[in-house]
Amino acid sequence: MRSRAAELDAADGLAKLRERFTLPDGVVYLDGNSLGALPAGVADTTADVVARQWGELLIRSWDESGWWTAPERIGDKLAPLVGAAPGQVVVGDSTSVNLFKALVGAARLAAPGRTRMLVDAATFPTDGYIAQSAARMTGLTVVPVDPSHAAEAMDADTAVVLLNHVDYRSGRLHDLPALTAAARAAGAITVWDLCHSAGALPVGLDEHAVDLAVGCTYKYLNGGPGAPAYLYIAARHQAGFDSPLPGWNGHADPFAMTPAFEAAQGATRGRVGTPDILSMLALESALDAWDGVSVEAVRAKSLALTDFFLECVAAYVPQGRVESVTPDEHERRGSQISLRTENAREVMGELISRGVIGDFRAPDILRFGFTPLYVGFTDAERAARALGHVFG
Amino acid sequence: MRSRAAELDAADGLAKLRERFTLPDGVVYLDGNSLGALPAGVADTTADVVARQWGELLIRSWDESGWWTAPERIGDKLAPLVGAAPGQVVVGDSTSVNLFKALVGAARLAAPGRTRMLVDAATFPTDGYIAQSAARMTGLTVVPVDPSHAAEAMDADTAVVLLNHVDYRSGRLHDLPALTAAARAAGAITVWDLCHSAGALPVGLDEHAVDLAVGCTYKYLNGGPGAPAYLYIAARHQAGFDSPLPGWNGHADPFAMTPAFEAAQGATRGRVGTPDILSMLALESALDAWDGVSVEAVRAKSLALTDFFLECVAAYVPQGRVESVTPDEHERRGSQISLRTENAREVMGELISRGVIGDFRAPDILRFGFTPLYVGFTDAERAARALGHVFG
Repeated sequence: MRSRAAELDAADGLAKLRERFTLPDGVVYLDGNSLGALPAGVADTTADVVARQWGELLIRSWDESGWWTAPERIGDKLAPLVGAAPGQVVVGDSTSVNLFKALVGAARLAAPGRTRMLVDAATFPTDGYIAQSAARMTGLTVVPVDPSHAAEAMDADTAVVLLNHVDYRSGRLHDLPALTAAARAAGAITVWDLCHSAGALPVGLDEHAVDLAVGCTYKYLNGGPGAPAYLYIAARHQAGFDSPLPGWNGHADPFAMTPAFEAAQGATRGRVGTPDILSMLALESALDAWDGVSVEAVRAKSLALTDFFLECVAAYVPQGRVESVTPDEHERRGSQISLRTENAREVMGELISRGVIGDFRAPDILRFGFTPLYVGFTDAERAARALGHVFG
Repeated sequence: MRSRAAELDAADGLAKLRERFTLPDGVVYLDGNSLGALPAGVADTTADVVARQWGELLIRSWDESGWWTAPERIGDKLAPLVGAAPGQVVVGDSTSVNLFKALVGAARLAAPGRTRMLVDAATFPTDGYIAQSAARMTGLTVVPVDPSHAAEAMDADTAVVLLNHVDYRSGRLHDLPALTAAARAAGAITVWDLCHSAGALPVGLDEHAVDLAVGCTYKYLNGGPGAPAYLYIAARHQAGFDSPLPGWNGHADPFAMTPAFEAAQGATRGRVGTPDILSMLALESALDAWDGVSVEAVRAKSLALTDFFLECVAAYVPQGRVESVTPDEHERRGSQISLRTENAREVMGELISRGVIGDFRAPDILRFGFTPLYVGFTDAERAARALGHVFG
């Protein structure tokens, strides 16, 4: 398998993108689905933001360094990665906060009289917690659904549907086009959580007529720890989008400082308070790693990597010690492989001590994220081999 | 006045604190009430966070670099500056988002049946916008009040009272102890916005039994552009605090990833999503500028500075060209002087071209913020002299 890996790396058109990142020596980093690696330009950008933009230009930087317009500018820079035309994505706040805006906004966009909010039952927990709060505050009732059967649950009483594009535990990719179409047919508003898909595979928000979406930027987008999240508001919903967090940054004329709120046009109305510039401009710099990269090419490499990793696991790990809970079918697979095993926490500890960084999700899951911008086939082979040694 | 200024600087026990900041040469910076200056250690801290904590340690930094616990740790570091014992302040999100948590939380803490939310009529606009949203979503009605007469408006129908400690336009300091006591006597829950007071004067949250408070960290606390804000939840209210933004970071056991939300104990339940680490750790470093500094000494210097500035303005500016809208009485004055004048925007432009940085607030206000950690009496004299030249 080692020579196969070397051949695959040699033939990989994206292999040279690894130079755009700073990675520690000797480590196989398969946790970019939790915290993406450091893009090469971020350190210089951050140093400039601190020393010159803040330290020297001070307050002038809100205009002169483009701080004020960063949320929309970075939203537009990120938009092609999720298949959105300009003017629909705004960056800022955490994923949870954006989810609250999106869900309350969706409830207010939904046809009056509908009472149900369908929520992915296997969701990353914060989505469920925030959905409960949004439902409570808008008079809806949360109904947990298995995303694979969500379409069957959508009916004339469904106001909002919240789904994850890729499940964080299993790595299962849900059928965004079909589920969005089903929701539309039922007259419901869709909110997609793209945390585990954006930057790993094509999303096609505009193409599939998604209504609203949120996502984080610190996984496959490499924006840095806790980097600002984003909110997508489809152009057709912007005039009607009624945010529960109408902060002054989302006002039509923020510096008029008028007592009454008047929402800005466009995605800007998704803004709330003053953006955290250090994190925001680090993200802007991080997105340079995508210059000239097609998401389709990334997706092709991602599938090749996860296929090859599964092949290596089958070759190296004794039969019956691990079981993949990630779907085999490409059209149902995200960019991670989740293996169920006994003593998963200890196994991951062993792997990490051997320089293979993945993560553990309770109670029994080993997660390995494959980030095609900086992970190669040799990494996949080495990780599987280390796993074999742990069981060997 | 010049020699007086030099004497006052020579006698100023806080003068040496200016060394803790990096300021551009030749500039008098009187806009620290909008964006505080750069503390000296922040550049090195940020470089380390990016290159080593993120770039080398990667995901391990959530534990090993103390990322996960940063919101509470930095909250406790900031707490003495607002007179709070440990365990009541949590850092993260913007001021607007924290205000939403505080106002909805306050409405849920308030006695049932009360219908009114009193809101400072002269408030910085985002507070009013967010208050409208919080009231709408909790069934309350916003009643604008003049803070000077707010006590008279508090009655048995008052659920929540939102006030600014210092008015952003006029620099008027409101009577937090008396207004908080009046609200308590009326059975209402207080929410104080400390944006323009924290770091400039003693706040005494615990001493005066404030219920909830929010504030930003990028003004007198020098945390950097858009640095994370904070939320104070008095210990006695923590068990009952019911956040409208129950994200996974505020869960009692976040990594259990249980489907049902169970709020963490303490101020932690004010957390929402993943904290923006770059901005957060820059703030932590910035707070080192307060080592060994008493807020009382800062307040004494602030009053001396604003007194002296007014004296210089009277000496240098032709009679009748400017009028201070900031109260003369020390007990009603924050740490800024706001001068009303004709053509205020143009006048401020002239001042800035002469190296004196203040700001303009529509329609007719020149704002000069005095930040005692790095502004001296010579600065005040030079600013007033430049203003005199503009009118001369």
